[in-house]
Amino acid sequence: MSAGFNVAIVGATGAVGAELLQLLEQREFPLRGLKLLASPKSVGKVLKFKGEEIPVETISSEVFRGVDIALFSAGAATSREFAQSAVNSGAIVIDNSSAFRMEPGVPLVVPEINPRDIQTHKGIVANPNCTTIISLMALYPLHRAFRVRRVIAASYQAVSGAGAKAIQELSDQTKSFFSGELAAPVVFPQTIAFNVLPQVDVFLENGYTKEEIKFANESRKIMHHPTLRASITCVRVPVFRAHSIAIHAEFEQPVSVKQARDVLAKFQGLELVDDPGSRVYPTPVQVAGKNNCQVGRIRVDLALDNGLAFWVCGDQILKGAALNALQIAEVLKK
Amino acid sequence: MSAGFNVAIVGATGAVGAELLQLLEQREFPLRGLKLLASPKSVGKVLKFKGEEIPVETISSEVFRGVDIALFSAGAATSREFAQSAVNSGAIVIDNSSAFRMEPGVPLVVPEINPRDIQTHKGIVANPNCTTIISLMALYPLHRAFRVRRVIAASYQAVSGAGAKAIQELSDQTKSFFSGELAAPVVFPQTIAFNVLPQVDVFLENGYTKEEIKFANESRKIMHHPTLRASITCVRVPVFRAHSIAIHAEFEQPVSVKQARDVLAKFQGLELVDDPGSRVYPTPVQVAGKNNCQVGRIRVDLALDNGLAFWVCGDQILKGAALNALQIAEVLKK
Repeated sequence: MSAGFNVAIVGATGAVGAELLQLLEQREFPLRGLKLLASPKSVGKVLKFKGEEIPVETISSEVFRGVDIALFSAGAATSREFAQSAVNSGAIVIDNSSAFRMEPGVPLVVPEINPRDIQTHKGIVANPNCTTIISLMALYPLHRAFRVRRVIAASYQAVSGAGAKAIQELSDQTKSFFSGELAAPVVFPQTIAFNVLPQVDVFLENGYTKEEIKFANESRKIMHHPTLRASITCVRVPVFRAHSIAIHAEFEQPVSVKQARDVLAKFQGLELVDDPGSRVYPTPVQVAGKNNCQVGRIRVDLALDNGLAFWVCGDQILKGAALNALQIAEVLKK
Repeated sequence: MSAGFNVAIVGATGAVGAELLQLLEQREFPLRGLKLLASPKSVGKVLKFKGEEIPVETISSEVFRGVDIALFSAGAATSREFAQSAVNSGAIVIDNSSAFRMEPGVPLVVPEINPRDIQTHKGIVANPNCTTIISLMALYPLHRAFRVRRVIAASYQAVSGAGAKAIQELSDQTKSFFSGELAAPVVFPQTIAFNVLPQVDVFLENGYTKEEIKFANESRKIMHHPTLRASITCVRVPVFRAHSIAIHAEFEQPVSVKQARDVLAKFQGLELVDDPGSRVYPTPVQVAGKNNCQVGRIRVDLALDNGLAFWVCGDQILKGAALNALQIAEVLKK
C-alpha cells in the first residue's frame, strides 16, 4: 500500500466534486485511496480519476471507516447528517457547506489568510462562502496593512454557485430566449437569462439574504476582526463560473493607490490586473479556470475617509470552493 | 396649421430616437411639425409616426429654422457641434448627451426632482446620465426626508446604454457562444456575453470612469447638494435595456425601513416592489418597457450610521433617456 491519505469526496457528481477530482490529479495530492460518495440517485455512475474508473457509492454513516480526509460538497443538510459520522470514524472533515462555519470551535479558513486556525480543529474545518473567500483575497492584505474599519460591497455572482443544474439552466434558458419561448426558471427564483437577480440564498427577517449575512459574519471570523462593519448586496448575474465583487472599504490608516497596489501585488493567490488606461482590469470570463483571484480598478474612494474602491474576480468553483478546500487538506497533510 | 410645437429629434435612427418617436405618439405631445434628423449615413431612411412616413434629414446648422424644441440624442460630439445653432434659430434644446450637463447656467433636470430648474434655462436643458436618473428616483425622496450625507453604489448597466449596435452585439455574441465561435467585441472593450465589465465610458486620471464621476457630479447638481459624498462602481452586464443599482446610503437623520418605504411609496414615477419574503423585488427584465422605476430590497445598512441599503431598477431607454427628455419638454410646453 502506497504512502498517502484515504480521501472521500461527498457530492462527487456535483460541480464542485468534479473540480475536486481534477485538482487532486493536477496537484498530485498523495492518495492511498479515493472514495466517491453521493446521494442514492447517483448510484451506478462511474467517474474517471487518473485513467481509472471509480464507481460512485451511496453516502451512509458507515462508509467513512478508514477515511483520513472527507471533503464535503453536497449542501448543508448532507453535512449536518453525515459530517459527525465521518469525524467519529476518524476522518477530518473539510466542509464546503454553511452548516458549521459559524460554530465556535470550527475553524473557518482561507489558507492564504488564517492557515494557523486549521490546527484548532476538533474534526471539522469549514470552507467559507465563495463570495467571502474571493472578496477577502483582496480585502485581507489591505486589512493587514491598513486595518479595515468598514466595507460596503456589491457582488456579481456566477450561476455556478447554485450548482451544476444552475449552469445548465442559464445555458438552456438563454437558448430558449432566441427560439422565442423563454424557458421557465426552476433553479433560480426568476429568469436569469439576460437578467440580474438581487437574491442569492433565502431572505432573513432583517431583509438581508443569508448570502449577505454570511459575508459579514464570515469576514469577521476569518480575519479575526469582530468589530468590522460590513454590508453587501449579493446579486446573481448571467455569468457561468466566476464571481466579481465591487468593494468600497474604509481603513484606520491613510492609504494611497500606490501603497494598495504594492500590498496587493505581493499577496499569494492574488494577481494585480490594474491598468485602466490600457483597459486592463479583471473580468469573470478572464479569471474562469484560474486558481488565482484577480484585483483591479483600485482607486481612492470618494465617499469614505481613508477609503479605497476596488474590483476583485475569482473562479467560484476553484478558489471559491474546491481549490480552497483542497488547500486546507494540503495544510492538514503537513 | 394646428396648435402645438415644432419638434426636431436629433439622432432619430438610434435606440433613444426610436423610443422618443413612440413616446411622442403615446403621450399625445401637441405637435405642429416633426423633423427627424440624423447623420448623413442615415439619409434615405424613412421612419413611421402615427401611420405617416417621415424621411430622415441630414443634420446641419440651417435645419433648425422654425423648430421650437430640439431633442438631441446623438452623442456629445453632435450636441457640441449643433446645439448652439438650434438655440440661435430659436429652439429650446433638450440634450441627452453629457456635453453641457455640468455647465453653470444649464439646468440638469429630473422632472420629479427639480422641475423648477428648467425655468432658468438659456436655451439648453440637459438630460442627466441614465444611471444617475434611475438612482436618484429612489435616493432623492429619501434625501428630502432624511438628508443624505454619503452614498456608495454599484451599477448593473444594460447594453442599451451604449446604443442600438450594443444591443445587437450582445444578441449576436451570445448566439455565437453557442455555435462554438465567440464573436469578437466591437462596441464593448471586451466580451459582454456571459461576462460583466467594470468599465462604462472611458477612464479618467483618478482611476474612475467618466460614468462614475458623472454619477457623483450630476447627483450633487440635480439634488442641489454640493457636499454630498458619492462613489460608485459602474459595471456593464449582459442585460438588454434596464439598469439596476445597489445603493448604500448614510443619512443625517435616523431612518427606519418602514419610514423609508412610506416615503418611497409616495414618490411619483417610482414603484415600491419590496416583499422579500415572497421573493418580490425589482429586476431589470421586469422593469423593461415601463415608465416607472422600481425600488426594493430596502434594509438597514449594517456598515453606515443612519444607513439604508436598497436596490433600484429602471428602463434605461425610457426613464434613463427618452422619457425623461420628453417629460422636460412637457414641463416646457406649460
